[in-house]
Amino acid sequence: MRALVKTRPEPGLSLQTVPDPKPGPSEVLVRVKATSLCGTDAHIYNWDEWASGRVHPPRIIGHEMCGEVVELGTGVSSVKVGDYVAAESHFTCGICFQCRTGQAHVCRNYRILGIDVDGSYAEYVLLPERVLWKTAPDIPPELACVQEPLGNAVYAALAEDLSGHSVLITGCGPTGLFAAAVARTAGASLIIGSDVSDFRLGLAKQVGVDLTINAKTDTPEAMQAAILDITGGEGVDVALEMSGDPGAIHQVFKAIKNGGRVTLFGISTGQVCFDLPNEIIFKGIRVYGVTGRRLFETWYRLAGLFKAGLDIRPVITHTLPMEEFARGFELIKAGKCGKVVLIP
Amino acid sequence: MRALVKTRPEPGLSLQTVPDPKPGPSEVLVRVKATSLCGTDAHIYNWDEWASGRVHPPRIIGHEMCGEVVELGTGVSSVKVGDYVAAESHFTCGICFQCRTGQAHVCRNYRILGIDVDGSYAEYVLLPERVLWKTAPDIPPELACVQEPLGNAVYAALAEDLSGHSVLITGCGPTGLFAAAVARTAGASLIIGSDVSDFRLGLAKQVGVDLTINAKTDTPEAMQAAILDITGGEGVDVALEMSGDPGAIHQVFKAIKNGGRVTLFGISTGQVCFDLPNEIIFKGIRVYGVTGRRLFETWYRLAGLFKAGLDIRPVITHTLPMEEFARGFELIKAGKCGKVVLIP
Amino acid sequence: MRALVKTRPEPGLSLQTVPDPKPGPSEVLVRVKATSLCGTDAHIYNWDEWASGRVHPPRIIGHEMCGEVVELGTGVSSVKVGDYVAAESHFTCGICFQCRTGQAHVCRNYRILGIDVDGSYAEYVLLPERVLWKTAPDIPPELACVQEPLGNAVYAALAEDLSGHSVLITGCGPTGLFAAAVARTAGASLIIGSDVSDFRLGLAKQVGVDLTINAKTDTPEAMQAAILDITGGEGVDVALEMSGDPGAIHQVFKAIKNGGRVTLFGISTGQVCFDLPNEIIFKGIRVYGVTGRRLFETWYRLAGLFKAGLDIRPVITHTLPMEEFARGFELIKAGKCGKVVLIP
Amino acid sequence: MRALVKTRPEPGLSLQTVPDPKPGPSEVLVRVKATSLCGTDAHIYNWDEWASGRVHPPRIIGHEMCGEVVELGTGVSSVKVGDYVAAESHFTCGICFQCRTGQAHVCRNYRILGIDVDGSYAEYVLLPERVLWKTAPDIPPELACVQEPLGNAVYAALAEDLSGHSVLITGCGPTGLFAAAVARTAGASLIIGSDVSDFRLGLAKQVGVDLTINAKTDTPEAMQAAILDITGGEGVDVALEMSGDPGAIHQVFKAIKNGGRVTLFGISTGQVCFDLPNEIIFKGIRVYGVTGRRLFETWYRLAGLFKAGLDIRPVITHTLPMEEFARGFELIKAGKCGKVVLIP
Repeated sequence: MRALVKTRPEPGLSLQTVPDPKPGPSEVLVRVKATSLCGTDAHIYNWDEWASGRVHPPRIIGHEMCGEVVELGTGVSSVKVGDYVAAESHFTCGICFQCRTGQAHVCRNYRILGIDVDGSYAEYVLLPERVLWKTAPDIPPELACVQEPLGNAVYAALAEDLSGHSVLITGCGPTGLFAAAVARTAGASLIIGSDVSDFRLGLAKQVGVDLTINAKTDTPEAMQAAILDITGGEGVDVALEMSGDPGAIHQVFKAIKNGGRVTLFGISTGQVCFDLPNEIIFKGIRVYGVTGRRLFETWYRLAGLFKAGLDIRPVITHTLPMEEFARGFELIKAGKCGKVVLIP
Repeated sequence: MRALVKTRPEPGLSLQTVPDPKPGPSEVLVRVKATSLCGTDAHIYNWDEWASGRVHPPRIIGHEMCGEVVELGTGVSSVKVGDYVAAESHFTCGICFQCRTGQAHVCRNYRILGIDVDGSYAEYVLLPERVLWKTAPDIPPELACVQEPLGNAVYAALAEDLSGHSVLITGCGPTGLFAAAVARTAGASLIIGSDVSDFRLGLAKQVGVDLTINAKTDTPEAMQAAILDITGGEGVDVALEMSGDPGAIHQVFKAIKNGGRVTLFGISTGQVCFDLPNEIIFKGIRVYGVTGRRLFETWYRLAGLFKAGLDIRPVITHTLPMEEFARGFELIKAGKCGKVVLIP
Repeated sequence: MRALVKTRPEPGLSLQTVPDPKPGPSEVLVRVKATSLCGTDAHIYNWDEWASGRVHPPRIIGHEMCGEVVELGTGVSSVKVGDYVAAESHFTCGICFQCRTGQAHVCRNYRILGIDVDGSYAEYVLLPERVLWKTAPDIPPELACVQEPLGNAVYAALAEDLSGHSVLITGCGPTGLFAAAVARTAGASLIIGSDVSDFRLGLAKQVGVDLTINAKTDTPEAMQAAILDITGGEGVDVALEMSGDPGAIHQVFKAIKNGGRVTLFGISTGQVCFDLPNEIIFKGIRVYGVTGRRLFETWYRLAGLFKAGLDIRPVITHTLPMEEFARGFELIKAGKCGKVVLIP
Repeated sequence: MRALVKTRPEPGLSLQTVPDPKPGPSEVLVRVKATSLCGTDAHIYNWDEWASGRVHPPRIIGHEMCGEVVELGTGVSSVKVGDYVAAESHFTCGICFQCRTGQAHVCRNYRILGIDVDGSYAEYVLLPERVLWKTAPDIPPELACVQEPLGNAVYAALAEDLSGHSVLITGCGPTGLFAAAVARTAGASLIIGSDVSDFRLGLAKQVGVDLTINAKTDTPEAMQAAILDITGGEGVDVALEMSGDPGAIHQVFKAIKNGGRVTLFGISTGQVCFDLPNEIIFKGIRVYGVTGRRLFETWYRLAGLFKAGLDIRPVITHTLPMEEFARGFELIKAGKCGKVVLIP
């Protein structure tokens, strides 16, 4: 089969023909219908410091996907050939404290698709039965394949109920945009989105953000003034930090209402320094560190949100044949895209 | 001023001219712009057993209202003349355990507007400052006056988060319809509504109910089959019992998924008998008794839901001049209405 | 090996020699060190209507146990020979909605040890690897074997936090007594226990119940008066219904404070009829149907409570050799025991 | 009456005779039976930068107290002369969003006893009726007066249920010690306490801490190793940061289990810099900023914990006549005390 392989510890990926995988016990072979590019994949593509310490070539990368079940290993009973599935990308251990207490998303021993095992940038991918997620047939592949990162957004946004609440989202990359769409569907009273890219803020408007703020052109003070103005001087009920940018992080803790809720999701690369009493303690807020998706509550919730009308189509800006992967990574680098989907 | 007064312990109300009230300390005089009919008012109008034991004539009734502040008693500081307000109808004591621990909606000593003190079926009403709720000017009086019962629906529906969840609502009277509208705005994946009136089920469709079931023409078995069919055999995540009907109550406990959540809000008039192990215990469900509104979280939440697009206009089927009150109560008796609003 | 077998559809059990079981893939053979009698076992022993519809002889019964791992089937990795273990008695399916969303205790397809598969009233028992619970070696077998019903009590008592809260426990059978011990360890401010047996109320005193009430000799009115008196007229914050008795159930809904929390755990045998508005709705309470144990949060919690000083020794009133099982069931029938433990 | 007055903007306090205060409407005059020294009072005594910007002399300071009601202003109905009371020190506004939604502890307009109004280092103190807390007569004054800071500890410790959970407390000053006592009473499985003072670690042992660690003599690595060792390699379920020390703060985020809960309570004085992904996000933890006490849930909870056996006597190391206040502040400076109580 054809696959995108990180063959050597250096930037780039190689489109190669590799042997077709065969499912072992409790494994399932899936023909990939669509697979999308994630920031993590871009790190691996660019072979930055994090990637070089984490990924061991050769490796087929990619972990956001959907496809059709084509072959079952022994003992598989919950799916059948022909099923339309996506996959939870975290292969959890099942026996640690976290896995045994409903917190498998922070399993201490998980392996990741496309990093620790061969991934989905390929015509076929092998998956453990237990990570498969049967997907409604009316969801087209270019949407179904992004359920994994969309699940991040669902968990980040709905860590607490936000119906009727005002929401600030800092960072309008794909997951921030997904979070905005989720907040819109869940009945947020007001959604404010900030980013440094007008292109992305344009997408934000399309998924229902009420007020967009460009953090490159507006000062933090002007942003805070705008947030207070539109919230009647109260600040926001909920803030979702989806950028990892230190300035945005401080914006969040400034804009959040006393007693409000903050989700930290975006990955900052260095130290971020806080005035803890004034930013967190005296405000009496709750801060959630969010990573991954709750297994499988988030997936069920996501399926329900699709039925409720969740519309993420504006976020899927590019659908390319798999061989044009380099163009996809260029688009990400240039910030000129939402989500980029590859069709193997 | 003109007012509708229960003058004697017998059915009916009398439209009379009574002295204008004057605000005492911490009180506010409000000119009523709209006031709506509640089932409780119908009980008092019809002078049933409950009413005759609870209400002491003479009494101006009515507790769902909005209006304009026209005069302030001494010490009032949080509103000013000209403000557009609605009112929390429960005047809580402020010093009982419940009031001091954020559970004032189940205050043990509360008095109710239009029952224990003169109410809002009048040109003017006296209200304690602390029950006033400033309302956005863009909400017209015939919607603003129903915020009190709408608040019931908000609390009943959102006692737990329901975004992305399937919801059964038994009873499509005004509060059930409001609950459906709230569930729609909050991103329910699916809303099933049942009632015995096709008229009400028609309104249910208008507020976004996906599947309506007529409990008069369908058997409980057929209803359960329809619910299982549309939920893929799972049952519903959330059930809101808004009717008080024993059949509907059992439908709720049959349709609810293991581990799901039930709100009991509708007032049943006699004993309702349960198979507790199979209806509640072995299902591992949570049951919330819901009455009133959380002070004032529910009101804030409601304001946010309006901003999120909550549309309850289909439920307000009749707006009548106050002198046509008798026609309003007839409409309720006949089940040929949603909410009936009076304009003093 | 020797085992207690329900050989025919009739009352009684037969102590027989049966073939030693052999572990298959993912199974573990455990030598039973202690196994305790449950009310369910008594139903099967007495062969009542429920038992005759649920159990299919021949069957080795018993589901509360601890023991030592003596042989591993293929693929077992989380325990080793010599480990000291107890077992979750519910063998859940792992693939239903409930199992996939952290609600496996209400799995829709679970099988029960000693009912659907051969149980622990035997020298050896076969168990799936995934239900094993490694137990601290300092907990003696006669305590370790009751962790399963003790887990019921932990979940029933701690469905919500009760530290500093007043608690009513109706029904002082073993699980009610366990719940009292848990509430004591978790810092309940006051524990009231009711039962019809002075013997059991004596045990209640030993596990830390502050006020005991005999529901046989006291009227419901006297009991309510005593509860109000000791709670300063407030009623209790938390009520745990552990008896299934209709009178006790109504006591619970009378004694619970507005806004309080009720756990329903005891299994009533017929219909129980409610005045829903006054018993649940207007009180604004939360009612939890509780069955089983949360997998495996409850087990971890239980291990922590043992470390915190949880003392259930007074509840274990009898430890008998397995061949004296008939005497054990007689003690249960006579109500002259707490928990009865058998040593194979 | 005699009172300790900050007369000028400089270090120290002055014991003076001042006019007896008279209660206005809704106010109550209380004869102070005991009043304790808080870190905040020490800041004011020492007149550091924070104090000089916040406090405006002349001011009687002190905000932790208990006493006897001796005179009622007009309109007071919830207490009577002779009642034994403590006081919530935060005088909240009652009308902001936070006050109206059960979050009055983070009221945006509150005033503080002994800072914004004259305080309790005096023979008599004036208090608004609504902040009074009737206290059980069997609690002696030197314990009753510390309910305010003890309430901080109750809220910090029980922001989530901790029965059966392992707890790390960094900082064993009075509030940290109180938190340890609360955790012990609430059934923590294990309590680890760290501090830089062996004197305080000795007190920690007395309130039930299982393992004490001296952060001055042990390296962070050694501390983490000790924590992992005693928790079986898991880390702690709950961490309460009560010191404000940057090293302790990082210890907390290192020791906390994936999916665990952190309370931030201690006030750090400068910037604290975080590796957010590894300290918070990838761990999937919840962080609570805690300040003040929940009004009045925390006070009720505290009363319940006293009944459950909460023993804070070891923390009250010194009880001095009010005129020896200078010695009290010296003891605090030297770290040679738990809580110091003054008797006016």
